[in-house]
Amino acid sequence: MEKNILLKIKYDGTDFSGWQRQPNVRTGQGEIEAALSKVTGLDVKIEGTSRTDAGVHAMGQMASFKGDFGIPVEKLKYVANNILWAMSGNKMKSPDIEILEVAEVDLDFHARFDSVGKTYKYIIEHGKDFDIFNRNYAYQIRELLDVEKIKSAAQAFVGEKDFKGFQSSGGTPRESTIRKITSMKVEVSSPNRIEIFVTGNGFLYNMVRIIVGTLVDIGLGKISLDEIDDIIKSCDRCRAGHTAPPQGLYLLRVYYDISEMEKE
Amino acid sequence: MEKNILLKIKYDGTDFSGWQRQPNVRTGQGEIEAALSKVTGLDVKIEGTSRTDAGVHAMGQMASFKGDFGIPVEKLKYVANNILWAMSGNKMKSPDIEILEVAEVDLDFHARFDSVGKTYKYIIEHGKDFDIFNRNYAYQIRELLDVEKIKSAAQAFVGEKDFKGFQSSGGTPRESTIRKITSMKVEVSSPNRIEIFVTGNGFLYNMVRIIVGTLVDIGLGKISLDEIDDIIKSCDRCRAGHTAPPQGLYLLRVYYDISEMEKE
Repeated sequence: MEKNILLKIKYDGTDFSGWQRQPNVRTGQGEIEAALSKVTGLDVKIEGTSRTDAGVHAMGQMASFKGDFGIPVEKLKYVANNILWAMSGNKMKSPDIEILEVAEVDLDFHARFDSVGKTYKYIIEHGKDFDIFNRNYAYQIRELLDVEKIKSAAQAFVGEKDFKGFQSSGGTPRESTIRKITSMKVEVSSPNRIEIFVTGNGFLYNMVRIIVGTLVDIGLGKISLDEIDDIIKSCDRCRAGHTAPPQGLYLLRVYYDISEMEKE
Repeated sequence: MEKNILLKIKYDGTDFSGWQRQPNVRTGQGEIEAALSKVTGLDVKIEGTSRTDAGVHAMGQMASFKGDFGIPVEKLKYVANNILWAMSGNKMKSPDIEILEVAEVDLDFHARFDSVGKTYKYIIEHGKDFDIFNRNYAYQIRELLDVEKIKSAAQAFVGEKDFKGFQSSGGTPRESTIRKITSMKVEVSSPNRIEIFVTGNGFLYNMVRIIVGTLVDIGLGKISLDEIDDIIKSCDRCRAGHTAPPQGLYLLRVYYDISEMEKE
């Protein structure tokens, strides 16, 4: 009997050419599909909720697939992770992708279409004394940022707005560029480290990275804090800041329940 | 006037083909020499105290070089690190190697020949729930280790002994295989994480990694704790354990003063 399976996936994006399957390169989707195809004996195709770029990480990418397969659902995670481990070719360290959770869901459920929003985290290290060991896991900026300005500016993004000025070309064309950001949190986790949490009902291509880049430009004094409302309203990519690099970005959580998202 | 310069260097060994200069590949020595050659205008050659293998990290590699150059010693660190940053080709994250300290020393001082010992750290994660993000920075073992056995066995290595059974072929041939380990510490930094600190006056090729591999085999029950003294005395590589992988190993500190080493 056909089952519909929802997966929660974690990966270190450093060595992936992004999430989306592409020929001849390692991608998150490609690795998971290869592992699940071996486990089930089917030609498994999954679709993630977020097409993360090369270098972007995920703590909670979600994906679903349907199939009629023999292995009990409760064993799927363990067996698929074993296969991912074997595929990595090194017994002495884990692979860079892992299935965290597996659940059977209703047949009409779809990981992407049924999601109501997502939270991304973006990590910035700034100033002089940051750790070279974090270079693939944070945006490292040698100047010191004005964190208070960043905190103020961040709140300007909250609400339902046209984010046309905060998208890169090259993504899937969208009918509307209106998105709702329900929450922006800026946490100072250590004197030289900022974690920005962005929660919203949907995101344009590179939207979080351009929002963060704009906040960084404000923190560096390249963009004035007074201008931020105008910049958002202008819908002009040229007025927004630079695109922050991929390695600071983490897909943290995907929501299927609005009330869960509103807790953020 | 010729100056003699001592450097303290940190690197993430993940993307290096080890420390030692080799043609056409990135190495720690090669990067530092390239940066210092640009800074000084000389053809700088340095020699590190430890020829770490590919994947091995350093928090305190030491190296020295001599030269008659114009730039003040106190500016050397800053300028060389800027060049390393530029060489890395990415402004938005740090390079994977950094000069931590620069000091002018007596002309007859040599970073390697004058060193009296070193401390290495080795990080092991074991059991089920370790983090894929640490895979290049620890030896990740899916079985749970018996940490108490490892702690007991570790002390068997302390003292002046013939470590012939704890070297790999392929290193520089040594006249004597007798080395003195002055301290072994096994710290449990979290329930599934062990940090092993090995301090000694010198180390054979892969010696720390084979000691750690032997301790792991004891923790897994593959080698009996009762046998450890015999295994060391046997001087037989076949009786020692496996070679632990490079990514768990960190060159922590090099000593030039015996009394400093004895504090460890």
